[in-house]
Amino acid sequence: MAERKAEEIFTAFKEHSIAEFFKKNRQMLGYSGKVRSLVTIVHEYATNSFDACEEAGILPSVKVKVTEKGEDRYIVSVTDNGPGIPKTFVGKALATILAGTKFHRYVQQRGQQGIGAAGCTLFSQMTTGKQIAVKCSTGTGKGYTCKISIDTVKNKPVISDMVDTPDVPRGLEVEGEFADVKYENSDHGILEYLKRTALSNPHAEISFIDPQGQEHKFPRSVEKMPERPEPAKPHPLGLYVNDLLEYAHSSPERKIGSFLQENFARVSAAKVAELREIAKQVDFDKEPKQLSWDDAEALIKAFKAVKWIAPESTHIKPIGEEQIRLAMKNIFEPEFMNVVERKTALLKGGIPFIVEAAVSYGGFSGRKTDDGYSATVMRFANRVPLLFDSGTCAITIAAKNVEWRRYNLDIEKMPISIFVNVSSVHIPYTGVGKESIAQEEEIIEEIRLALMEAARGVQKYVSGKLKAHHEATRYNTIMRYAKQLSLDLSSITGKDQKSLETSIQKLVASKIPQAGIKDDEKVEDEAAAEAEETD
Amino acid sequence: MAERKAEEIFTAFKEHSIAEFFKKNRQMLGYSGKVRSLVTIVHEYATNSFDACEEAGILPSVKVKVTEKGEDRYIVSVTDNGPGIPKTFVGKALATILAGTKFHRYVQQRGQQGIGAAGCTLFSQMTTGKQIAVKCSTGTGKGYTCKISIDTVKNKPVISDMVDTPDVPRGLEVEGEFADVKYENSDHGILEYLKRTALSNPHAEISFIDPQGQEHKFPRSVEKMPERPEPAKPHPLGLYVNDLLEYAHSSPERKIGSFLQENFARVSAAKVAELREIAKQVDFDKEPKQLSWDDAEALIKAFKAVKWIAPESTHIKPIGEEQIRLAMKNIFEPEFMNVVERKTALLKGGIPFIVEAAVSYGGFSGRKTDDGYSATVMRFANRVPLLFDSGTCAITIAAKNVEWRRYNLDIEKMPISIFVNVSSVHIPYTGVGKESIAQEEEIIEEIRLALMEAARGVQKYVSGKLKAHHEATRYNTIMRYAKQLSLDLSSITGKDQKSLETSIQKLVASKIPQAGIKDDEKVEDEAAAEAEETD
Repeated sequence: MAERKAEEIFTAFKEHSIAEFFKKNRQMLGYSGKVRSLVTIVHEYATNSFDACEEAGILPSVKVKVTEKGEDRYIVSVTDNGPGIPKTFVGKALATILAGTKFHRYVQQRGQQGIGAAGCTLFSQMTTGKQIAVKCSTGTGKGYTCKISIDTVKNKPVISDMVDTPDVPRGLEVEGEFADVKYENSDHGILEYLKRTALSNPHAEISFIDPQGQEHKFPRSVEKMPERPEPAKPHPLGLYVNDLLEYAHSSPERKIGSFLQENFARVSAAKVAELREIAKQVDFDKEPKQLSWDDAEALIKAFKAVKWIAPESTHIKPIGEEQIRLAMKNIFEPEFMNVVERKTALLKGGIPFIVEAAVSYGGFSGRKTDDGYSATVMRFANRVPLLFDSGTCAITIAAKNVEWRRYNLDIEKMPISIFVNVSSVHIPYTGVGKESIAQEEEIIEEIRLALMEAARGVQKYVSGKLKAHHEATRYNTIMRYAKQLSLDLSSITGKDQKSLETSIQKLVASKIPQAGIKDDEKVEDEAAAEAEETD
Repeated sequence: MAERKAEEIFTAFKEHSIAEFFKKNRQMLGYSGKVRSLVTIVHEYATNSFDACEEAGILPSVKVKVTEKGEDRYIVSVTDNGPGIPKTFVGKALATILAGTKFHRYVQQRGQQGIGAAGCTLFSQMTTGKQIAVKCSTGTGKGYTCKISIDTVKNKPVISDMVDTPDVPRGLEVEGEFADVKYENSDHGILEYLKRTALSNPHAEISFIDPQGQEHKFPRSVEKMPERPEPAKPHPLGLYVNDLLEYAHSSPERKIGSFLQENFARVSAAKVAELREIAKQVDFDKEPKQLSWDDAEALIKAFKAVKWIAPESTHIKPIGEEQIRLAMKNIFEPEFMNVVERKTALLKGGIPFIVEAAVSYGGFSGRKTDDGYSATVMRFANRVPLLFDSGTCAITIAAKNVEWRRYNLDIEKMPISIFVNVSSVHIPYTGVGKESIAQEEEIIEEIRLALMEAARGVQKYVSGKLKAHHEATRYNTIMRYAKQLSLDLSSITGKDQKSLETSIQKLVASKIPQAGIKDDEKVEDEAAAEAEETD
């Protein structure tokens, strides 16, 4: 084969928009497999609705409707009671990839990328050629309807049929037609997704009308808005050199000292003085705009050399122990459970996150198998259920690393549900589809500790149950011999058989605790008391 | 909490570049974990070098050097003998995300996104603030050196220190400094990555100088260029409505009939006539530019109703059975192996792909464990080794679905290496980091069939070996009794012990095949003959 020159090869050189990229690689956004694709659509819209409601201080009420429109073809509509999108932003918010209010802010939210809703628009036009129909109002007469799609070559919105309709109630309704999707009632379907969403969002009201027309309601179990996480300032220990430089170069501050105090968490005047002592080569009196890479590197080194107070917990709002307990009770009606909320931990030393875990036993916990039960692991990130890509997720890895048998839990045989929620201002997802948390050591370790603590709380109950079961079996086995023994003894000694039998029964009862008589409630109380002790 | 209005919330609305996105989500490009990050860098550069060499018709010779520069800080340089990059394109090729020669072409290549090398540039500037140093020549005097980085806000290249140096030899050398990375000699390290690259690229010469200064050489084992896959025309069955519309709207053809023949594989005049009969509502004489969504939908439906010849195999070039055999022999020196190349299969009916699989037994196959061996699975896509995210990969899932025991293979105990390479013009990766193939049914099934076929070929050898072992054990066990039996018989009958013993031994030998005597080579020959039969 003749050699070809670079000049010849590079005639094919082109640049592409991010919209074209995701059009060609839709599986990266979660659009792989028909069932998963349909869940992805609901997931993206519902996630946006919850974020919008909470940011606006509104208790969320979200309605999802899925209607069959032909083979592998469905209409999906999601309606919320949120703040709506101002008319001037609707195209960008729903039909521009990498645009939005979330990407650049350092605040705990479900969405964090500015891709999701625009991805749905892209997927609809790719599979059915249809636009997304929008009905929206930001309140008091500011209602409108329109249709949107994306110009994929430019990654710009195309808006048509814009009509002002003042009487649209406040909130957002999006409705799209999608092909190459399929509704399925399984562990990976929309119903399970919404059930888990209800579990992790007890303050939300969710209704779902499935393709058979059946309505599933998940009522609100907590009437209180969750505390709103405040936007955080980054902690110095979570910064890369590059981040620090970028902050510095866009800062209006006059001096490096005040720049540090202004932009980052836990930097006091005293801390600046300490840093000055360590990073002697840095001129703290120059403008942040003049900060060099070497300066920034010296500062990052100095950050690591001083002692810091942990980031404030006001920036991370977990679901809350009581809320999880309530939601688990509603959904699994377990015999027993233990809920654990860990303290704020740090990823890379500076990005705060909180792990919550729960282990429930009995009731509707776990999954029925052919010959009994097995445990299920429910993964959540900032209250959003993760249904796919479990193999690569930090939560799965952590759960595998727990020696469940040490806690008398057999996750292959017992009716156990394991719940984990990771909350953070920045969840390191493995992919754009946000279905799996990257295997960062600090996160895996925190989850593992949370699960061990949760398991320990359940251990007493399960052990008690196993012991009671074991002793009841032993007691009954021995009692079965009492009658025969009394008959034999009676024929040997000539004594009365009935009184012999009673004596033997009394003897057995005095030697073996009458476990069979002990009721479950008492065991649960004891275990609960124990669990509280170990908390 | 007071409600907030949409207008207030949307003041935070911003648009972002794809470079900013990946800067914040570096783990999505494969930059998560220090060891993995370093492998990702080598992977991206080496992949580009191989693609460039092959496209130019040059037998690749690639040198990788990794030097320690401080704690978790390394310099990586990759040098090839490829066609180089014309000076006018270097910034775009190495420092613009989503630009390149690969993304839009329908041809089998390792890279397919236009992200990799720019991702390395981004990662270097993020972690060390350094630019990438480039030394390049496209031949005869067109040499230059320069330094590059990315303006992340605009996703545009920044080039400095551009110098013409005519004496640079043809090829490309990139050198970057990276922090937050770590060299490790493990199953997930660079050495293993390059070893596997050599395995799947026997026509390449690779050398690697590790941080200890030791040079590892992987010489070329095939002196012939692999056949170059021709750019393909998409097959009608692989098209979505949306694709067809886009092709049509940018087509200069005058009529739909000629447009179809011109742009897609296997569309003949006769086929167009057939399609006309089925898609009666479509006016085949109008301009492709006038094609409506409904027209396109009718055409896609018609495509599914007619019979098609499979796509030409000239577009997919697998590694080749002989090449794999040779490479496996060089690296594992196995006792026995079987290599299988499947015919071209179709993803979604129209995207051709070919699966190759090999199973080797013995030698350096498999992985040593504390108490013996276990099997290893080596995954490849278009000859590129996939070291990470195995849990979500179609290859892993397929390998798990094979009932190895049916083939007398114990993958938990035997020294077995399993090799799978998937070749296609478009590999559906699960993520931008390209470490895992999406679980598309058609792909999983092809891999499973390939592995079963490969396993069947090895079965005879392993069964023979097991049988020989079993019979040798049985033979020896019985022979141990021969002496005692002859002594006992001698004392009972008075006959000569020695002659009794000989008779017994002869008797045993005649009843039990002397498996212990049969040599391995003969077993291998038989098994090979059997394997060929089943091919």
